Amino acid sequence: MKEITGATRLFGILADPIHHVKTPQRMNEYFTQAGYDGVLVPFHARPGNLAAVLDGLKRLENLGGIIVTVPHKTAILALCDDASQASRKIGAANVVRREPDGRLTAHMLDGEGFVRGLRSCGHDVEGKTAYMAGAGGAANAIAFALVQYGVSSLTIANRTAAKAEDLKSRVLDLYPQARINIGTPDPSGHDIVVNATSLGLKEGDALPLDASRLSASQTVCEVIMQPVETALLHAARERGCTVHYGAPMLACQIELMAEFLGVTAAR
Amino acid sequence: MKEITGATRLFGILADPIHHVKTPQRMNEYFTQAGYDGVLVPFHARPGNLAAVLDGLKRLENLGGIIVTVPHKTAILALCDDASQASRKIGAANVVRREPDGRLTAHMLDGEGFVRGLRSCGHDVEGKTAYMAGAGGAANAIAFALVQYGVSSLTIANRTAAKAEDLKSRVLDLYPQARINIGTPDPSGHDIVVNATSLGLKEGDALPLDASRLSASQTVCEVIMQPVETALLHAARERGCTVHYGAPMLACQIELMAEFLGVTAAR
Repeated sequence: MKEITGATRLFGILADPIHHVKTPQRMNEYFTQAGYDGVLVPFHARPGNLAAVLDGLKRLENLGGIIVTVPHKTAILALCDDASQASRKIGAANVVRREPDGRLTAHMLDGEGFVRGLRSCGHDVEGKTAYMAGAGGAANAIAFALVQYGVSSLTIANRTAAKAEDLKSRVLDLYPQARINIGTPDPSGHDIVVNATSLGLKEGDALPLDASRLSASQTVCEVIMQPVETALLHAARERGCTVHYGAPMLACQIELMAEFLGVTAAR
Repeated sequence: MKEITGATRLFGILADPIHHVKTPQRMNEYFTQAGYDGVLVPFHARPGNLAAVLDGLKRLENLGGIIVTVPHKTAILALCDDASQASRKIGAANVVRREPDGRLTAHMLDGEGFVRGLRSCGHDVEGKTAYMAGAGGAANAIAFALVQYGVSSLTIANRTAAKAEDLKSRVLDLYPQARINIGTPDPSGHDIVVNATSLGLKEGDALPLDASRLSASQTVCEVIMQPVETALLHAARERGCTVHYGAPMLACQIELMAEFLGVTAAR
């Protein structure tokens, strides 16, 4: 990577634990390719220290912004001066920009990363019907992004129905025209099927939906990156579905984050 | 430099302004040569924000420590949890280590950097008589280091004599056996002559001492790095003195700082 000087713009990723994060490698690679004089470093903050850490970091004149990940995505929102409408409705943010006057603006790009990842693999969501399993953190971000990018309808299926209803009502707050349904484990009849639960991370996990109801015309998508092929994607492939892996969601977010943080290519 | 990952230890330099600092380049080069997984980045903090910035930074679990430079060297001392005896007597620090429990320990290495720089050029100070022009920030650090490293006597010459007397009494507080004199502009009769004032930074500055009294047996030293050859060093060379430039003081400090910050070579 490029040499760090006194003029290099500073970025960081806030996480706890921190060792496993891959954002420094990927964003610094992005900076290098863009010819941008910036560096992204790990900021390891415990939850109880988040407010004081953020208060200190925002006073660094050369700070460009901060990527935020587990377990700080929810707590960060109340600590910023401003936030995008979507991140407020989602109740979480994963990127914070430091404005020239030192104010912090929060935004959530997990969902847009997912949709851009789909696009980068040739799958547009506009006008499509979508089914999503889950109503937790990742599901919240993805639901807002699917509606923002123009799905014709979104079905939310969650074990605890109240959480799905709550997510539905928050999406409708921001997008009153959206067609949102509460679903069952049966994903049939939708163009795009998304697993936005954590089921599939661990071997032996139950499937997040009834895979026997999948058909070859559907595109089945994961947010899980490790394992690369979850039991759901394996079942979907066997049924002839198009499958979409978890990795592009993060890959596409680096670019979205850089855009949001004002990183501009020098060449 | 080495790729930054989630496991990379974080260091920074606190300064205002920040653009001109060279510590990131030098310390990151040191880390690379030592095979140490660390990165040093610029932290641009205004004086009014120093306390809040430090309070935030100390809560970063992966922070190894901070280099401190203008204008924070004095203010930093009261903001740390602990400080070396010398830095307390000097009233300033230029390096802060984050202990495993999050406490901050301050230390001043400007003076040791100067003495190690002299040594690295073959000039030991032990048993030598030293003359120093100045009683300000750099002079304070150098006075303590010259005595610590065993000069047989130190003469302090300053335009405002009260500042020289004050420095003398603080050195004697820590080193009661030291032989400290208050001097005149005449540096004759000393083995080592040091300019620790800022006279010589700007063209047309008065000489910091009476150069007509220099003789060939003396080693004349600068703390000023730019210009490389000050009017004093030029005059000293013309009188046949050994001259010692300002650059080694900083070069040797990188190693001292790395040692103090617990940076250990991996190979």
